[in-house]
Amino acid sequence: MPPLHDSPLIHRLCVIGIGLIGGSLARALRAAGVVETIVGCGRGEENLSRALELNVIDESSRDPATAVADADMVVIATTLGATPSVLASIAPTVCPEAVVTDVGSAKRRVVEAARSRLGKNFTRFVPGHPIAGTEKSGVDASFASLYRDHRVILTPLPETEPTALRRVTEMWEATGATVTEMDADHHDDVLAATSHLPHMLAYALVECLAGMEGSGEIFAYAAGGFRDFTRIASSNPEMWCDIAMDNRDALLSKLELFAATYEQLSDALESNDRKALLEMFTRAKAARDESGFPVA
Amino acid sequence: MPPLHDSPLIHRLCVIGIGLIGGSLARALRAAGVVETIVGCGRGEENLSRALELNVIDESSRDPATAVADADMVVIATTLGATPSVLASIAPTVCPEAVVTDVGSAKRRVVEAARSRLGKNFTRFVPGHPIAGTEKSGVDASFASLYRDHRVILTPLPETEPTALRRVTEMWEATGATVTEMDADHHDDVLAATSHLPHMLAYALVECLAGMEGSGEIFAYAAGGFRDFTRIASSNPEMWCDIAMDNRDALLSKLELFAATYEQLSDALESNDRKALLEMFTRAKAARDESGFPVA
Repeated sequence: MPPLHDSPLIHRLCVIGIGLIGGSLARALRAAGVVETIVGCGRGEENLSRALELNVIDESSRDPATAVADADMVVIATTLGATPSVLASIAPTVCPEAVVTDVGSAKRRVVEAARSRLGKNFTRFVPGHPIAGTEKSGVDASFASLYRDHRVILTPLPETEPTALRRVTEMWEATGATVTEMDADHHDDVLAATSHLPHMLAYALVECLAGMEGSGEIFAYAAGGFRDFTRIASSNPEMWCDIAMDNRDALLSKLELFAATYEQLSDALESNDRKALLEMFTRAKAARDESGFPVA
Repeated sequence: MPPLHDSPLIHRLCVIGIGLIGGSLARALRAAGVVETIVGCGRGEENLSRALELNVIDESSRDPATAVADADMVVIATTLGATPSVLASIAPTVCPEAVVTDVGSAKRRVVEAARSRLGKNFTRFVPGHPIAGTEKSGVDASFASLYRDHRVILTPLPETEPTALRRVTEMWEATGATVTEMDADHHDDVLAATSHLPHMLAYALVECLAGMEGSGEIFAYAAGGFRDFTRIASSNPEMWCDIAMDNRDALLSKLELFAATYEQLSDALESNDRKALLEMFTRAKAARDESGFPVA
């Protein structure tokens, strides 16, 4: 363990939900030497024991209200579906000076829940979303470098205290992430397009193929493109239900936009319009290649 | 260069189209020591010079009719769109004992073209399709191990000579590939599901996002899942137009099946039907995880 800074960023960190996201954050902050003590909170006894065994956390609790006592930083890293009840549980016991943040993939409803449940602590709640992850779950899947060179979006509100925002920013920067800020609704709209819509497509594609006659053979002849394309369909179904339901309005509008493009493509093929198809594929390739992603 | 076998499988190999697929086949066969001389044929002078420079081919020609002279194995590795005219060009000059094969991603129309253009040589035409590739193009992207542990599907016809089929099978096995046989229509149906449909979805997704307001920002916030999901949208647009048009009927039927599943998913979200969404995601994850692909 690296030596602690003279004045660690966080004295007592409480992470509620020690899965891939919460576990990786705990590991990264410990590796950076910016935290004194990490309390892990979760519903599953086995996963909590494993987190202690792996030294991801120092102490454990299964009750959020108890876990947050004396913590100066509380990170809610549960599923989106559990977040409102966690917020309600911790409201009476969280320290008045503690900063609370979350990692949810959709922000508008989390903000609403925090506003109604955190009471006077709401001004020290900083909504957050690290744009990182894998399709795996649980503390065993967590690793310290998950956030390195990834983006974390924070969506502070007009009433968010600047010191709370600064502390959460510094916490994520200590993991190697780049922190940016945007409005919660705008976040939800951008993420619906770049993350939630692709997940819906991957789930729908695998569901569609699995229902076809001879689906066993179909999967047997699938190549690398298909494997990459459908990797995200291995993601946790409960978690993605939560995300889809939480960001329903923005996602429905993207689903509609995609359906329109898909219909254009199908129509072009149906009517043997090679020119229209070629224009579409050419524009898409150019956009993909210019997006700054490595091609391979 | 490894020593040639006592009796090499192929004396004079002619590969028409020295791109990723044709170039990788030439490299693999040379690495395996099963070919004496490789003649490369292509339209682009620069790519052909590069293929000679890289020692992927021994001789070059820009005219298919000339290139096939004296070859005992001819591999057509052009785009699907160019294949019929290549077949017509080589028909008068190809040796009577030569075996001809191709690498097209859709087989029914290639078979029709070969039947009408190769004349009496049609019985030594073996339709083929290696299930391998990357989204890159050109001889510089080719490599000898591309086919190792990949499948190659051959779709011989009742009139295909068994010796021709055996020679093409042995050629692909020498690259490390596993060769299987199926009916051309069945091939086109399976590949429409596993490869052509996912490519259409990737192109449509990138086209859709690129058309959204603030698309620059959208791409900036995309994470790994999106990168993997859209990698195939970087594939050659001309090539994919050819494939889509060549396999139009099978692809249209898969596009329709996908549209139905997509509508179910959208409807479930629209009507707040969490149970239906969860069932769909859970089935998809199970099918993906059981498909035998590595999860990561």
